Amino acid sequence: MRLHHVGVAVADLEPAIELYTQTFGAELTHRAINEEDGLAAAFLQMGDAEIELLASLREDSTVGKFLAKRGPGLHHVAYAVPDVKKALADAHASGLELIDVVPRMGMHGVPIAFVHPKSVGGVLTEFVEA
Amino acid sequence: MRLHHVGVAVADLEPAIELYTQTFGAELTHRAINEEDGLAAAFLQMGDAEIELLASLREDSTVGKFLAKRGPGLHHVAYAVPDVKKALADAHASGLELIDVVPRMGMHGVPIAFVHPKSVGGVLTEFVEA
Repeated sequence: MRLHHVGVAVADLEPAIELYTQTFGAELTHRAINEEDGLAAAFLQMGDAEIELLASLREDSTVGKFLAKRGPGLHHVAYAVPDVKKALADAHASGLELIDVVPRMGMHGVPIAFVHPKSVGGVLTEFVEA
Repeated sequence: MRLHHVGVAVADLEPAIELYTQTFGAELTHRAINEEDGLAAAFLQMGDAEIELLASLREDSTVGKFLAKRGPGLHHVAYAVPDVKKALADAHASGLELIDVVPRMGMHGVPIAFVHPKSVGGVLTEFVEA
């Protein structure tokens, strides 16, 4: 597994993109909107890994609830795996609690799945097929 | 800048190391103790970046206070820069509030410095000279 990206919950996408590109020299590589989940994302390349800026399109989205409870900041960590289905099976066999029992399509257009933070020391953890 | 590591605050170092090495296949590369700051750390390689597990040796350490307030979980993000002093000057010129006005020695034995999370959308951000 390699570190694929770090998810950051932001109140507003545009000033956050400006901060990471202008001040930290990151390259904006991709934007995505998921209307169903109520999320807008921007992906910034930082070496081999990415920062995924996540904004909420409505209060009851996962990120909207996160922002209301904890404020903006670090949201999740994602690891690249060759096979998300197998990674989920291995995680389940190790006793971890899964949020996604089967992989779903992520905003990169590849299968993803989340493991519950209570199984990973409070860290919301994602597998990305890559 | 490239993503150098993600810092994770943990209640106990050993079970966290076991989780990341056994379940996620990470390689434990380095351990460090900073008695002055009251911190114990373990570094796990995950591709080009690292997970830095951070435990507190006493309640009044920065991580001890973080754990008391927020519980275990994502703590900070660190970017590798060629020159921490210059990165700090650039960040200051961009209006970011610095925690460390001058670089100090980090647990990797190289200069580091932190930028205040309130200047980076709630993300405690570190520069590492690498």
